[in-house]
Amino acid sequence: MTSKKLSDGSITQELKGLPGWSLAGDVLERTFSFTDFMEAFSFMTEMAMVSEQLHHHPEWTNVYKTLTIRLSTHDIGGISEKDIEWATRCNQRFNQSM
Amino acid sequence: MTSKKLSDGSITQELKGLPGWSLAGDVLERTFSFTDFMEAFSFMTEMAMVSEQLHHHPEWTNVYKTLTIRLSTHDIGGISEKDIEWATRCNQRFNQSM
Amino acid sequence: MTSKKLSDGSITQELKGLPGWSLAGDVLERTFSFTDFMEAFSFMTEMAMVSEQLHHHPEWTNVYKTLTIRLSTHDIGGISEKDIEWATRCNQRFNQSM
Amino acid sequence: MTSKKLSDGSITQELKGLPGWSLAGDVLERTFSFTDFMEAFSFMTEMAMVSEQLHHHPEWTNVYKTLTIRLSTHDIGGISEKDIEWATRCNQRFNQSM
Repeated sequence: MTSKKLSDGSITQELKGLPGWSLAGDVLERTFSFTDFMEAFSFMTEMAMVSEQLHHHPEWTNVYKTLTIRLSTHDIGGISEKDIEWATRCNQRFNQSM
Repeated sequence: MTSKKLSDGSITQELKGLPGWSLAGDVLERTFSFTDFMEAFSFMTEMAMVSEQLHHHPEWTNVYKTLTIRLSTHDIGGISEKDIEWATRCNQRFNQSM
Repeated sequence: MTSKKLSDGSITQELKGLPGWSLAGDVLERTFSFTDFMEAFSFMTEMAMVSEQLHHHPEWTNVYKTLTIRLSTHDIGGISEKDIEWATRCNQRFNQSM
Repeated sequence: MTSKKLSDGSITQELKGLPGWSLAGDVLERTFSFTDFMEAFSFMTEMAMVSEQLHHHPEWTNVYKTLTIRLSTHDIGGISEKDIEWATRCNQRFNQSM
């Protein structure tokens, strides 16, 4: 998986396959709302394991049953395939568990 | 919540409302099968939090996507309402996440 | 445990016993730096369980090995004993694991 | 990393560098005792992430503050380098967190 910075056109294209995600400044962002804190945190645990597998980690903020995730690739100062991959896996796992 | 030991009759009665659970010797037991390790472990995380809330903890064995849970109440040497409560919450959360 | 709003004087007093925490606007805040993501997230798991025990949850942001925690008591619009209790438990567990 | 079955001689040799672990029948085994359930489970969370990184998973049983881990490599019916690697990472992380 490369870490090349994606063009705005590529990002727009990729976002079509990533319901819930949008471009917020320089990052990909999605907010999830769960039933309660336990569900929110167990989903974070699942994505923590995915993060270690992908060697790519989000910035995420949790408060009770809400989780906001922001993705970018720090060393290239933009959005790369790694962020698209993370968001894709995140949506798959979220849809699976709902 | 009391920790009185339940009679065999009571346990049989309670098990009717707890699909998947059975009496194995002196413990309540259920085995879950998940899609993969991540799902298994995130479910364990959810039930770890429930355990802290209920101040009651299972004996559980995980190997890859399989999780076997054994419940009993140590200080009374048998099954109590606490085990029924734990199993009930476990089933609710499992059904919710499937 | 009450949820009464603490006065500025009380908060200042309590902060003396809470190294690392400071008042940032209307919230108590502390940032932790860990060795890596796994350590950061396992500490979050520990505090997730404490949160369920205390029925009180933080706003927390994690990115890789950094964790920033912000505490306040939403329904009183300020800082209460619940936040002090959470921060105290957090420091105890952090010191224990280091 | 290969999944070749290790000879008894190799295993004996490897165990010298793995304090706490021993050969129990066909598996490597170690039991950990923590301060409480939260510590036990947060350590499991850390090792769950390691497991995903190594694509290798233990059989582990937890009851309250005790954790027993059994390692073997299923598809070769014995102990491989993967188990040694897992046990090594486990000891490193346990020593780090104590």
